[in-house]
Amino acid sequence: MARHRPPSFSMLREMHVHNRKKLQNAMAEKLESIGQRLAGVVLLQGGEERYRDCTDHLELFRQESFFAYLFGVREPGFYAAIDIATGQSILFVPRLDPDYAVWLGEIHPPSFFKEKYGVDAAYYVDEMVSVLRKFDASLYLLHGLNTDSNRYCKPATFQGIEGFEQDTKVLHPVLSECRVIKSELELELLRYVNEVSSAAHVKVMRSAQPGLKEYQLESTFQHYCYMEGGCRECSYTCICATGENRQEVLSFSLNTFLVFLYSAVLHYGHAAAPNDQIASDGAMALLDMGAEYHFYGSDITCSFPVNGKFTEKQRLIYTGVLEAQKAVISKMKPGISWVAMHKLAETKILEALKTAGCLKGNVEDMMENRLGAVFMPHGLGHFLGLDTHDPGGYPQGMSRINERGLVSLRTVRTLEAGMLITVEPGCYFIDAVLDPALEDPVLSRFLNREAIDKFRGFGGVRLEDDVIVTSDGCENLTNCPREISDVEDVMAGGPWPRT
Amino acid sequence: MARHRPPSFSMLREMHVHNRKKLQNAMAEKLESIGQRLAGVVLLQGGEERYRDCTDHLELFRQESFFAYLFGVREPGFYAAIDIATGQSILFVPRLDPDYAVWLGEIHPPSFFKEKYGVDAAYYVDEMVSVLRKFDASLYLLHGLNTDSNRYCKPATFQGIEGFEQDTKVLHPVLSECRVIKSELELELLRYVNEVSSAAHVKVMRSAQPGLKEYQLESTFQHYCYMEGGCRECSYTCICATGENRQEVLSFSLNTFLVFLYSAVLHYGHAAAPNDQIASDGAMALLDMGAEYHFYGSDITCSFPVNGKFTEKQRLIYTGVLEAQKAVISKMKPGISWVAMHKLAETKILEALKTAGCLKGNVEDMMENRLGAVFMPHGLGHFLGLDTHDPGGYPQGMSRINERGLVSLRTVRTLEAGMLITVEPGCYFIDAVLDPALEDPVLSRFLNREAIDKFRGFGGVRLEDDVIVTSDGCENLTNCPREISDVEDVMAGGPWPRT
Ligand SMILES: [Mn+2]
Ligand SMILES: [Mn+2]
Repeated sequence: MARHRPPSFSMLREMHVHNRKKLQNAMAEKLESIGQRLAGVVLLQGGEERYRDCTDHLELFRQESFFAYLFGVREPGFYAAIDIATGQSILFVPRLDPDYAVWLGEIHPPSFFKEKYGVDAAYYVDEMVSVLRKFDASLYLLHGLNTDSNRYCKPATFQGIEGFEQDTKVLHPVLSECRVIKSELELELLRYVNEVSSAAHVKVMRSAQPGLKEYQLESTFQHYCYMEGGCRECSYTCICATGENRQEVLSFSLNTFLVFLYSAVLHYGHAAAPNDQIASDGAMALLDMGAEYHFYGSDITCSFPVNGKFTEKQRLIYTGVLEAQKAVISKMKPGISWVAMHKLAETKILEALKTAGCLKGNVEDMMENRLGAVFMPHGLGHFLGLDTHDPGGYPQGMSRINERGLVSLRTVRTLEAGMLITVEPGCYFIDAVLDPALEDPVLSRFLNREAIDKFRGFGGVRLEDDVIVTSDGCENLTNCPREISDVEDVMAGGPWPRT
Repeated sequence: MARHRPPSFSMLREMHVHNRKKLQNAMAEKLESIGQRLAGVVLLQGGEERYRDCTDHLELFRQESFFAYLFGVREPGFYAAIDIATGQSILFVPRLDPDYAVWLGEIHPPSFFKEKYGVDAAYYVDEMVSVLRKFDASLYLLHGLNTDSNRYCKPATFQGIEGFEQDTKVLHPVLSECRVIKSELELELLRYVNEVSSAAHVKVMRSAQPGLKEYQLESTFQHYCYMEGGCRECSYTCICATGENRQEVLSFSLNTFLVFLYSAVLHYGHAAAPNDQIASDGAMALLDMGAEYHFYGSDITCSFPVNGKFTEKQRLIYTGVLEAQKAVISKMKPGISWVAMHKLAETKILEALKTAGCLKGNVEDMMENRLGAVFMPHGLGHFLGLDTHDPGGYPQGMSRINERGLVSLRTVRTLEAGMLITVEPGCYFIDAVLDPALEDPVLSRFLNREAIDKFRGFGGVRLEDDVIVTSDGCENLTNCPREISDVEDVMAGGPWPRT
């Protein structure tokens, strides 16, 4: 009955087998390169189910992403191991006590999960110490910095772990790097979730109209993804901002340009700003929403006029952002620097702003003075996969560039085939950023105050596609109307994809 | 644009003012009754926003329920206080550092929240010690057992708390008791959320058909509640079980009858059993779903044949459960024992099973031997409010009845005006329960094995309404088709409510 056809569970199982094999090989290579013997067991601890505060209200469980990457296990309370020498994979299943509490559905034995998840063996968690002892080798545990959150993931722990030799340094960078380069099977899944999310965005675009509450757009998106695509969750809380609210999507002081931006830059829709305004006639909508299927997500932003027709001002800004996105995507291929892509996008946006009369002077001079960050303060994009901000953006030895705008980049890497990265240029008119810039002796030289003032309250435009780097270019997984004529046509009821 | 009209925010603010006043009075009364002087400050700590594992994936924040009850604050990181002598209410607002991180939308000063939430004063959290010191009195902190989860809520804590006298015993029972009896303003909100949820159930009923995935029913429900009612969240994870899955909704061994049932008895739809089966022709659907609005929830269960027409067997069981529900609701009023209501429901169900040929013998004998619990192992209902299982079911001095079935009751209290309680009789055919019962020398005397075997695989039926006790009876907030003729008519496209 659903409109989209998700990958089969056996394909997904194969994908995880492949992910494990990849880690095994990478760990073997790593151990060799640092002169350690080919031995040891990778041990991960899966996530735990959580209750709300002191109540018995159970939150819907979502597996920790590293664990999900390797094992695809949907249930809470698991551990899992991979023997590096042989590749043997083992699941440890929590023992549910039938005499203690009500069954949470049927209780399955380890053999059920061995079969379900295609591992080589499965035991109960309480058998873990004795099983692991047979390997007579170090445990490689996951401990390392997430460079988007600036927090560390915590290594597995269990009763009896003190009896094992432990290493918490080797695994994290190796496993993170595995996740950076997507396999063909992962891509199949990522294509699916992008297909569903793109179609859902189109559905929303078609149903948008003045007078709707922002959350009605959110609800329409979520319903489409679940009803037609089986996607129970979104990759992140939907951002559905119309009109002035887009200021909240991205408002911060000029000082923060030089601060590491660990928090989500694009923040609306959360509990303190819950998509509850009315979309008004003449306003732009900025909708940043993506579905998740079997732990893999999408991250797509569309911007369009709520009433279906671009005004001249909207057209000017939108075109600049679209040109930036198209220019970047046309250049993406292995060997290209992501920083160069960010700057390319900035250039295109500055050119458009100059055409609109907002800027004066030489675009090269503007670039040298990092003016682009006044209008696009966030980075051009980020890795995407099991997390919206997938790890691996700053591997050991790489660090943030301490310049306005560039400091916000979630990666500064050179593109490689298999990287999935979002391309999300944006252009925003934010009082809290513009006012200090107009006072700044260097930046103000380029700014045409009168013209800029006409765009105050306009908010902003962002266009975000999910793009995979291929051997000789790239493939855009997202398929939403982007050209102004297409957006207007689809909003008026025209077909999509156009035939 | 939305079909339903939620209570205004100013009405909700007034509701919280009333809730605080009620606590103040109750605390004053309590202090007097235990001979303590009328002084001291109630201090609560609100919930914190959470990230998923080590990532920057922010979970959608939902305020802790006691804090929400008193202050209605939607944002994370707050503290709040009520001076018992004067009733003065104070919010403590987290100080967000504009120079450190990106703003999560606009940063509002304490005065904004003072206005928004109608408290008497607001300061920053970092001013809390000096503000509280002025009261020169004990802090009453929230610490106590949740009798559904068997876990304790944790009292507020902050830097400098060691400088204050603290009491963690008085507040919890008093505040829990405040939540048990609903005010007129709370009722207005509860009526709203029940109106939306009832209409959403009707929408789902109308769209049900063989071939749909269970989650498509869930998605339809959620979409209606958000789109038409502005309810962003459900009170609990939707249970959408069809056919044999209803075994998972409620399957456990006979031994658990004598064990305290702290976990959710009715568990399906969670990560390990995610509403992913196909609803088949001839199967019954059991849908337990409720929306939440401004922290207050609903909890409604409908059972109906997926194809819209009851079979004879379905009719027999459904009628028994419906008769049980109607009998209970017709009797509910202040002074009535909830245990008596539970037994009344059991009696009605046993009578229906006898009519269906499944049971033989005298219903009174069956009741004496607690046979009802074989077919309805859960309690008849529970308090409902900011939590699906609202606190106060077992106040100090009351305890569970250690008998089959009765031990599962979430309250054994005598009804009082203002109590909101679910009435949810059910009848299930669960192999894991029936088989031991058939082996039991006492229970088996009543069981007609051949007739029962014909119902194996049938699953079960549950009907759940949310009912408020009034001064001389009760009011049913739920308005879903219940009579078989109504269910069949509505599923065939007939109007609801019937005109
Ligand atoms: Mn993004
Ligand atoms: Mn219930």
